[in-house]
Amino acid sequence: IMSKGTVVLAYSGGLDTSCILVWLKEEGYDVITFLANIGQEEDFDAAKKKAESLGAKKVFIEDLRAEFVEEFIWPSVQASAIYEDRYLLGTSVARPCIARRQIQIARQEGAQYVSHGATGKGNDQIRFELTCYALYPEVKIIAPWRIPEFYNRFVGRKDLMEYAKSHAPADLYLMTKSPEDAPNSPDVLEIEFKKGVPIKVTHIKEGKSKDTPLDIFSYLNEIGGRHGVGRIDIVENRFIGMKSRGIYETPGGTILYHAHLDIETFTLDREVRRIKQGLGVKFAEMLYNGFWYSPECEFVRHCIDKSQESVDGKVQLSVFKGQVYILGRESPKSLYNEELVSMDVQGDYDPCDASGFIKINAVRLREHHRLQGEHRSKH
Amino acid sequence: IMSKGTVVLAYSGGLDTSCILVWLKEEGYDVITFLANIGQEEDFDAAKKKAESLGAKKVFIEDLRAEFVEEFIWPSVQASAIYEDRYLLGTSVARPCIARRQIQIARQEGAQYVSHGATGKGNDQIRFELTCYALYPEVKIIAPWRIPEFYNRFVGRKDLMEYAKSHAPADLYLMTKSPEDAPNSPDVLEIEFKKGVPIKVTHIKEGKSKDTPLDIFSYLNEIGGRHGVGRIDIVENRFIGMKSRGIYETPGGTILYHAHLDIETFTLDREVRRIKQGLGVKFAEMLYNGFWYSPECEFVRHCIDKSQESVDGKVQLSVFKGQVYILGRESPKSLYNEELVSMDVQGDYDPCDASGFIKINAVRLREHHRLQGEHRSKH
Amino acid sequence: IMSKGTVVLAYSGGLDTSCILVWLKEEGYDVITFLANIGQEEDFDAAKKKAESLGAKKVFIEDLRAEFVEEFIWPSVQASAIYEDRYLLGTSVARPCIARRQIQIARQEGAQYVSHGATGKGNDQIRFELTCYALYPEVKIIAPWRIPEFYNRFVGRKDLMEYAKSHAPADLYLMTKSPEDAPNSPDVLEIEFKKGVPIKVTHIKEGKSKDTPLDIFSYLNEIGGRHGVGRIDIVENRFIGMKSRGIYETPGGTILYHAHLDIETFTLDREVRRIKQGLGVKFAEMLYNGFWYSPECEFVRHCIDKSQESVDGKVQLSVFKGQVYILGRESPKSLYNEELVSMDVQGDYDPCDASGFIKINAVRLREHHRLQGEHRSKH
Amino acid sequence: IMSKGTVVLAYSGGLDTSCILVWLKEEGYDVITFLANIGQEEDFDAAKKKAESLGAKKVFIEDLRAEFVEEFIWPSVQASAIYEDRYLLGTSVARPCIARRQIQIARQEGAQYVSHGATGKGNDQIRFELTCYALYPEVKIIAPWRIPEFYNRFVGRKDLMEYAKSHAPADLYLMTKSPEDAPNSPDVLEIEFKKGVPIKVTHIKEGKSKDTPLDIFSYLNEIGGRHGVGRIDIVENRFIGMKSRGIYETPGGTILYHAHLDIETFTLDREVRRIKQGLGVKFAEMLYNGFWYSPECEFVRHCIDKSQESVDGKVQLSVFKGQVYILGRESPKSLYNEELVSMDVQGDYDPCDASGFIKINAVRLREHHRLQGEHRSKH
Repeated sequence: IMSKGTVVLAYSGGLDTSCILVWLKEEGYDVITFLANIGQEEDFDAAKKKAESLGAKKVFIEDLRAEFVEEFIWPSVQASAIYEDRYLLGTSVARPCIARRQIQIARQEGAQYVSHGATGKGNDQIRFELTCYALYPEVKIIAPWRIPEFYNRFVGRKDLMEYAKSHAPADLYLMTKSPEDAPNSPDVLEIEFKKGVPIKVTHIKEGKSKDTPLDIFSYLNEIGGRHGVGRIDIVENRFIGMKSRGIYETPGGTILYHAHLDIETFTLDREVRRIKQGLGVKFAEMLYNGFWYSPECEFVRHCIDKSQESVDGKVQLSVFKGQVYILGRESPKSLYNEELVSMDVQGDYDPCDASGFIKINAVRLREHHRLQGEHRSKH
Repeated sequence: IMSKGTVVLAYSGGLDTSCILVWLKEEGYDVITFLANIGQEEDFDAAKKKAESLGAKKVFIEDLRAEFVEEFIWPSVQASAIYEDRYLLGTSVARPCIARRQIQIARQEGAQYVSHGATGKGNDQIRFELTCYALYPEVKIIAPWRIPEFYNRFVGRKDLMEYAKSHAPADLYLMTKSPEDAPNSPDVLEIEFKKGVPIKVTHIKEGKSKDTPLDIFSYLNEIGGRHGVGRIDIVENRFIGMKSRGIYETPGGTILYHAHLDIETFTLDREVRRIKQGLGVKFAEMLYNGFWYSPECEFVRHCIDKSQESVDGKVQLSVFKGQVYILGRESPKSLYNEELVSMDVQGDYDPCDASGFIKINAVRLREHHRLQGEHRSKH
Repeated sequence: IMSKGTVVLAYSGGLDTSCILVWLKEEGYDVITFLANIGQEEDFDAAKKKAESLGAKKVFIEDLRAEFVEEFIWPSVQASAIYEDRYLLGTSVARPCIARRQIQIARQEGAQYVSHGATGKGNDQIRFELTCYALYPEVKIIAPWRIPEFYNRFVGRKDLMEYAKSHAPADLYLMTKSPEDAPNSPDVLEIEFKKGVPIKVTHIKEGKSKDTPLDIFSYLNEIGGRHGVGRIDIVENRFIGMKSRGIYETPGGTILYHAHLDIETFTLDREVRRIKQGLGVKFAEMLYNGFWYSPECEFVRHCIDKSQESVDGKVQLSVFKGQVYILGRESPKSLYNEELVSMDVQGDYDPCDASGFIKINAVRLREHHRLQGEHRSKH
Repeated sequence: IMSKGTVVLAYSGGLDTSCILVWLKEEGYDVITFLANIGQEEDFDAAKKKAESLGAKKVFIEDLRAEFVEEFIWPSVQASAIYEDRYLLGTSVARPCIARRQIQIARQEGAQYVSHGATGKGNDQIRFELTCYALYPEVKIIAPWRIPEFYNRFVGRKDLMEYAKSHAPADLYLMTKSPEDAPNSPDVLEIEFKKGVPIKVTHIKEGKSKDTPLDIFSYLNEIGGRHGVGRIDIVENRFIGMKSRGIYETPGGTILYHAHLDIETFTLDREVRRIKQGLGVKFAEMLYNGFWYSPECEFVRHCIDKSQESVDGKVQLSVFKGQVYILGRESPKSLYNEELVSMDVQGDYDPCDASGFIKINAVRLREHHRLQGEHRSKH
């Protein structure tokens, strides 16, 4: 039988992408599976064997952890990327990283097709496919969960149902302890930033420190996880227009969010920060909606990166019972000027100037009042 | 001696405004003192006696707690007002409330002057004075800490110094316990909202509930305080262009911030929320900078209030060791549609539509890629 | 033969919607045609007869001119709605008006289907259909130009080609003369606004005036058209992600845009205007993209309408050779205060205050300089 | 007599800065005058002689035209900088250029003071002084029109009055003819852009072309002036909170604004342009308010410059009777794709995808309708 062509399938080793693998072969495709290691708990060997036993022509298992942290998480930390004021975008930011590699494999293996197991109502299908189209415009995408023949055959099957059931709430949190079960004394860390990016984390008491991106991030996940940091249970707005409930844990990301916010406010000019804050909100939406590889996201990443040039310094913080407490910060580039702000020293600052500042700011308010008064008196 | 006129002085009962009272009298003014009760710990009787003994012509002590909560805090809750991503604006929002009453007293008592003890480098002078100018454009403001004669005489004095010292870090937190000393089991609350404003709080286990604005807010301050919720140690950007360190505690405000955010995301349309989020950021800046009584703030308050028309429902949350955890939410006006979002039921939604949605969203990205490819091939 | 059901077709009387009418009947539908009069040049009687002769079950021809001006154009004038800094959105804003009526007819006639002749690459299909789905969520839409059976049959036909050809550039402008052929002397008008909406236009020299929405708008189209006002030849970005060339004429809209902008800046507080300007940009995008009937557009219209409460007054302008020149303005609600702004009268304003204002604004800039200097000296 | 020190005075040669020169000397300062040539009509020799005869210690006359165009006007063109939707910021952008040179002279001459003749109610004082403080934080500024001794002595004097009168409306426009007196046939130009900046202008008919920044700008001023382009009569909101009337002419700037807008929309991705548009609005406010030399303006200029990387191409336009008409555009980097947008060719685009796109965009709108329906049925 003639093959319809080669598909690179994003394969998880789980039941549903295994079904997809088999179905794609039934449909006449050669299937290459691809499984990315971005730091998740997974038995990669078992997944490899399973894919082979199900008839995968080739099996790729790729360690993307370092590039994931450096190229995707670090820019998100710089941006203080947070969707709808709460969601730190952990999984969203993994998609373009994974799909980029999948596309590289597809090009290298001469595959015209890619496939994935994301459902037809979610965000991941979009993040995955926009990345694919952006990097390989001629690619054909097979999304079985949007294809009635596949969908109708598998959706009701008992085994898939059970698979779903096995992901019950109790299992939901994989990285974090419950805050109630967390240790009764905090861990105190110091995180050093250079251009808005963490370059070192030190456990103050233990003297231990980490200084590669992957080590820093893994260590913060470990410490944050131990203290139950970064769990949220939210309702969010999907790109396709639905509200859905999401339960997330982002222990390391949450620590970094707080630490970065602190050093940024300490070192950035107020007005630069305000503009950058607006760009960060836009960046978070792009990420959430799957537009990492878009001209606007490239542009905004460039601008945010530029804004971080002086975001250097160290933040001390304590992690305790689900919470991150900033203890202090220091920076060679701080705009914080103790003398200027002191109540005891006037220095270069003349308090009388504040009178003029306030009165000029009041010109507009007094005019508004005058006009309203005129109107009141007329009517 | 002829009086220079009457001054209404915002009086705290403390050393510095007492010095101002005496100095104003020395300068030839009649002084009326005004002390607002907005919920702070204070010995109002002692303050009254002290003012009288120092020669105040009249003494006003006014309970503004209910109007403070209803007219100032509730709109801030609706707005999710937060300055520079961290500061919940507790004291900022008190200023216009206090100054408004002070201006009413000044008009009623025929006083042409108002005075306050805010320093010349801070934000409070601005918040105070912009309110005064907005509501009483002809008023004259005496800000002793910006007047060299006063400043030079008092700034170095030992007693003031000691007063300042008495506010050492250990004493900084008045409302909140340290999270480490907080109870080892959570309190679980349900907060009910109507148009984005809390109308009832219930302690699930104890069955206790509160339903007036003041009671609700006081109760949340109590519960939050007990669990060490809402402490922050930040560096912030003042309106006058300096960075300064601020240590704040907002126990009740923090609980409300999280609960409101949750019910809002549950009930508001995504795009309405996005626009409202932008207005909320602007609102927070206005508040911080002292522009509560400005045409733009009136306008934005109106718009935000309008956005909250459907923000009704109940949020269940737990308060524990400095943190607020959302447990669930329900609403008669939710846009959350379990059937629509379900993976097992297609309902009205055809997953195939997502393919078209994604492909159209990719048109722009593919064009961008095409153009870049052309350039690469040329150069 | 059993009918498949009833379709309400947006019918123009032209060749392509006539083809659609016939095709829909062939496919087994009962077809009701609907033709809206929103002010375009059209032989409505001929269209009626043609529809009937082609087998329309019912023919609706509806004069929507007054509601189009009042409910759709006036809010756009209030918003200063302009897409990508140039396009005044004339046709965009007509779609929701037309589709709303079409949906009313569909409901009233018990039709489950609606159909239109918009192409598959344009914006109008989206504007039309989003309105339909928003107002009649269960409706089924038949878009023949996106249906291969129709598309492939008709796309290449000579007659349609010729139809397209007949719309050559020379014919493009229907309402406006070429500025080069316009009169050599201007017409001078006065437009009176109330809450941001024109309530009267007067031709100064001729003394003629109009005071109903439809009359005002028609008259401004006439005057603007005579002078060649409001022609643009642009490339714009469609919602579906393509760039396309558009040639538009908006004579009346252009005059109103300039007049409204002038009276608004004259009467609105600076900061209110700034916020409203941002909302107007968003409003224009919603309009362009077809989201008139959306929660966010309702919200933004409400906010913009609120902002216009004091936008009352008269603007004098001259229309000449393609251009609109503002000559003057007056308003009972102006915040313009001649005495305040005068160089000869100080009035309530003390120029010394400006020194303080400037120095405080410079605090941040000087700190920035200081910090950069430190860095220069170190490196 | 001991000199109080040296002042560098921004000197215009006119009556009021001559008064200031004399007054500064009376007050005991050594005065160096500085007159910048930024392209205005001026008798520089006469000004030099006048300054010397009035006792200036040194006289600087500096040709800043080339740097003004390249470093200040070009970035404003890239940004499409326009204040309150109408004002192209001509004079605003000249201030930082002039003040920068004045500060260089002050440093080089060891002067601790600078002075200017801007009034105490205007914007220019702010633009001037913020630049000075930003570039020379320790400088002392003497602003005579804010000093009561100067102000009270000169404000009422007949000669100054007469000076003011001589600037009557008829004389207001120096660069532009009245559109009514403009030629009866257009000039047709082609402007070539590279990275958003004009690099060549060609008069199509005459074949004449210019290719240095100063020549291009001067030539566009000449052509625009001849046709009466770029006159506006507006009310604007000053930074100090007043509304004031402004009459401006910006012939060359207006041509460039339109040409740049056209080539930008042609070459930039839609979403990049949208973000850049927001930054441009902020940039215009910074410029108007005097913050050219601020960290935020540096940041925004960098971002805008980055956005212009692909803004290359040629725009053809006609200038006629006060108006600029875009005739066409071409670019090697255009995202405009004739085949993609064509109605006759499907190419890579499947119109069916639009159905999915629209239906997914409607999900949210239908949910909104459903919810409102539920409410209607309940109440």
